[in-house]
Amino acid sequence: MVLYNTLTRKKEEFKPLVPDKPTIYACGPTVYNYIHIGNARPICVFDVLRRYLEYRGMEVTFVQNFTDIDDKLINRANAEGTTVENIANRFINEYFIDAKGLNVREATVHPLATENINEIIEMIKGLIDKGFAYEAKGDVYFRAQRFEEYGKLSRMPLEDLEKGMRVEVGEHKESPADFALWKAAKPNEPMWDAPWGKGRPGWHIECSAMARRYLGKTIDIHCGGQDLIFPHHENEIAQSECCNGVPFARFWLHNGYINVDNKKMSKSLGNFFTVREVASKYGYEPIRYMMIASHYRSPINYSYEVIEQCRASLDRLYTCRENLTFAQKHASGEPMANENEIIENVLARRQEFIEAMDDDLNTAGALGVLFELARDINIFTASQPSRRLCDTALTVFDEMCDVLGILYCKEDKSLDSKVEELIKERAKARAEKDYAKADRIRDELKSMGIILEDTPQGVKWRWEK
Amino acid sequence: MVLYNTLTRKKEEFKPLVPDKPTIYACGPTVYNYIHIGNARPICVFDVLRRYLEYRGMEVTFVQNFTDIDDKLINRANAEGTTVENIANRFINEYFIDAKGLNVREATVHPLATENINEIIEMIKGLIDKGFAYEAKGDVYFRAQRFEEYGKLSRMPLEDLEKGMRVEVGEHKESPADFALWKAAKPNEPMWDAPWGKGRPGWHIECSAMARRYLGKTIDIHCGGQDLIFPHHENEIAQSECCNGVPFARFWLHNGYINVDNKKMSKSLGNFFTVREVASKYGYEPIRYMMIASHYRSPINYSYEVIEQCRASLDRLYTCRENLTFAQKHASGEPMANENEIIENVLARRQEFIEAMDDDLNTAGALGVLFELARDINIFTASQPSRRLCDTALTVFDEMCDVLGILYCKEDKSLDSKVEELIKERAKARAEKDYAKADRIRDELKSMGIILEDTPQGVKWRWEK
Repeated sequence: MVLYNTLTRKKEEFKPLVPDKPTIYACGPTVYNYIHIGNARPICVFDVLRRYLEYRGMEVTFVQNFTDIDDKLINRANAEGTTVENIANRFINEYFIDAKGLNVREATVHPLATENINEIIEMIKGLIDKGFAYEAKGDVYFRAQRFEEYGKLSRMPLEDLEKGMRVEVGEHKESPADFALWKAAKPNEPMWDAPWGKGRPGWHIECSAMARRYLGKTIDIHCGGQDLIFPHHENEIAQSECCNGVPFARFWLHNGYINVDNKKMSKSLGNFFTVREVASKYGYEPIRYMMIASHYRSPINYSYEVIEQCRASLDRLYTCRENLTFAQKHASGEPMANENEIIENVLARRQEFIEAMDDDLNTAGALGVLFELARDINIFTASQPSRRLCDTALTVFDEMCDVLGILYCKEDKSLDSKVEELIKERAKARAEKDYAKADRIRDELKSMGIILEDTPQGVKWRWEK
Repeated sequence: MVLYNTLTRKKEEFKPLVPDKPTIYACGPTVYNYIHIGNARPICVFDVLRRYLEYRGMEVTFVQNFTDIDDKLINRANAEGTTVENIANRFINEYFIDAKGLNVREATVHPLATENINEIIEMIKGLIDKGFAYEAKGDVYFRAQRFEEYGKLSRMPLEDLEKGMRVEVGEHKESPADFALWKAAKPNEPMWDAPWGKGRPGWHIECSAMARRYLGKTIDIHCGGQDLIFPHHENEIAQSECCNGVPFARFWLHNGYINVDNKKMSKSLGNFFTVREVASKYGYEPIRYMMIASHYRSPINYSYEVIEQCRASLDRLYTCRENLTFAQKHASGEPMANENEIIENVLARRQEFIEAMDDDLNTAGALGVLFELARDINIFTASQPSRRLCDTALTVFDEMCDVLGILYCKEDKSLDSKVEELIKERAKARAEKDYAKADRIRDELKSMGIILEDTPQGVKWRWEK
C-alpha cells in the first residue's frame, strides 16, 4: 500500500514500524461548537483509513484528541456565563452524536488536553532543560531558530516565514516564529500550577504530549486537515523531535479543503455549515458519502445539489442490496449457466477495490468498483442466481461498504433472526430425535428470557414474564 | 406508586402483573421523516418511566415499534424514486441518532410491522373466525359494533362517534366506525400474501399483534401521546380483547401536547420542529430537559426562549456537580461540624425525590428536589466537606440525574481513571510487598494493551506497540 506523505511530497510504501500494529494520531476538534462539515472531512476519511488497515488484517491504535482548553472555549464560557468544562463536555457529547451519525467509530482513546497537564508540563520542562524553550514573564516559548529542521513539513525556510510574522502585544517572544508552549495565568481563565508559574498550555504542545503518552515517541501516521500543516504540525514536529530526539511521525497525511463558492469553508471565514444543520435536512449518510466520493486530497465543492446526488447514489446501492438479499432468500442450489464466470467476476471486483484503496486510499476509485459490482448484481438478480452466487456477491458487496463506512442504515434484525435460527435448529434436532440438543436450545433461549410455545401454526416465541 | 390511568380516569396504585417484571408497550414513530419534538415527548417521558421503575428494582421489558409500512412511507418513496424499505431504514437510523442525542435508551425490542406480517395475519384470521371482522373486496374491516365496550378508553359512545364519521371513497365498510385491518393490494405498493388476498396491514393491527408477540396477551402499561387515544388505542383494545378474550392493557398512560402559539404541534398542522433542527441550534439535552420540566400530562408551550432557559438550568446543575467533584477530590477524612445533619438532609432529599416520582411520575417536582439538593451542595462545598459527605451527596445527585436521564454530557474518563486506579492498587501491593498481586495487576494491564514504566516521576503507562 502506498500513501502520499506530505513530509516527502511523494507516495511511499506504508509499513508500520511494528509489523501489523500501526499507530495513528489524528488532530481532533476544539470543542467550543458543533463540528462543521470541514471538520467532518478528516474525521470521515481517516476513519476509512483505519477501517481499511483493519480490513487488511492490521491492529490499529487510533488516538484522536479533543482540545478542551483554549481562547475559543474561554470566550464562549464567559459569553454564556458558564464554565469552560461545561462547554467542553457539552460539545464533546454533541461530537459523539454527529460521529455516530456519520458512522465514524470511536477512537481507541479520545484524550483531553486538560487530562494531560502533567505530561505537557514535563515535556515543556524537557524542552527548557535542553535550551529549546525559554520562560518569559510566566509564558514559555519554543525557540524556533534552535531547531535546524524547522519548516521541513511546510517547506518554508524560517527566514521567509518570519517575514510575515510579528510579535503581538502581550507576547514576550525573542523572535516572531517562536510559539507559546505555556501561557501565563490571566483572571477568569482556568489555570494549573507549573514550575514557572500558574497558567495553561498552548495549543500545539498538547498533541506532542498526547501522541507520546498514548502512542510512543515515534508514530506511524499523523493526520489532519491541510490547514494544520503550518503552523500546527510544523510546531508539533519541532516540539516532539527536540524533546524526544527521534523522528516524530513517519507519515503525514493531509486532506483537502471543502469549498463553498470557491472559498475554503471554515469557522473563521464564517461560511461554514454544521454537520447537524445539513443532517437535519438531508440525513447524515450523504455527508459521509460526499467525503469518500472524492479523493481525500482533492478539494470538494459543497452544495445541497451535491448532497442530493449523494443521497440518490446511496439509494441505488441500497436498492441493489435489497435485490440481492431478496434473490438470496429465494435462491436454490442450482447454478446458473454462466455462474462460475460471474463469481470470478465478483472476486475480481474485490481485487480491484483493494488496488484502488492501496493507491493512497483512492476511495473515489473504490466507489467506482462498488458501482460496477452493483451493476453486475442488478443484472444477475434479474435471472435465477444460486445461493452460492448470492452469498459470494453479498459478502464482497458488504465488505466494500463496511470499509467505506456506508450503507449503515440497514435495520438490525439480529435479535429476531437469531431467535428464529435457534428455533429452526431446535426443530431440526427434534426431527433427528436429538432431544438432548433440542432441550439445550430451549434452555439457551430461556436464559435469554424467551419462552417457546408449540402451537398448531408451529413454534412461537414470546418474552418470559 | 400511583399512575394516572386514562382507562379509569384516576390515579391507581401500580403493581405489575408479574411481581417486579412490568411489561410496557409504547407506540413508536412512523419512519417516513425525522422525529419532531412532539414525537420526542413520549419518547423522553416514557424513558423516564422505565428508568424509574428500574431504579425501584424492577426488571422492565419495554417494546417500542416502528411503523415501517403505511401511506406516508409509500408516498415519500414514490416522490424520491426509491423503495419503502430504503425510506424506513434511513429514518430508523436517524431515529436512533436522535434518541441517543436525547439520552433515550434502546427498547428491549424495536419490532417492525413488516417483520410481523405472519402474526398480524393470524390475528386478523382469529377476528374473522369469531365474527369481529369481515372481508370486503380484498380489504378486511373490524366490525366496531360487535365489541360492546368500543369507546371505553376515549369514553365516547359509539353512536356519537359514528355521527362524525363517513365511509370514504374506495372503502367497503358496513358502518363508518369500522376500521381497516388489511388493505387490498394496489399497484406500486408493497404487498404480502394473505388468505383473503394480497395486500398490506392497516395501522392499528400491528400494535395489537406485536404487543401480544413480544409481551403476551395482557400487558401492564400501554403508553403514547394523547392524540393516540382515539382512534388508535381504542382500536387496539377492540382488536386485542376480541381476539384474545382477556383485558389488553392494565394501565393506559398518555402524555400531553406540545403547543406552538396555542396550537398543538403536529406534522399534519405543519407547525412542527424536528428534534434535529432544534438540536442543531441548542443541543439535544435542553430538549430532554424541557420534556421533564413539566408533568408529562400537562401541555408544554414550546419556544426557543424556553429551550434557552432549560440550557441555563442544566448549566447550573453541571456547575454544581463540578463544585462537588472538585470538593470530593480535595476532601479530607475530617467531618464538618454539622456534617451528620447535612448528610441526613441529603438522604431526606432522596426520599422526597421518590415521593414525587411515585406520584404519577411528577418529574417537575422531582426536578425541584434536585435543585434543592444542588443548593445544599453549593453551600457545603463552599466550606471543607469530608469525603464521606461528598460521596453521599454525589451518589444521591447522580441517582436523581440518571433517573431523569439528564446531565449526560459528562466526559467519560473511565479508561484513564480505571488505569490510574489499577496503577495505584499495584503501588499499594508493592508497598505491602505483595509482589504476586502487583504482577497480576501488571499482567491485567498488559492484557488491555497497556505497558507500565517506572520513571523518576513515578509509574507511567503507555499503549503496547
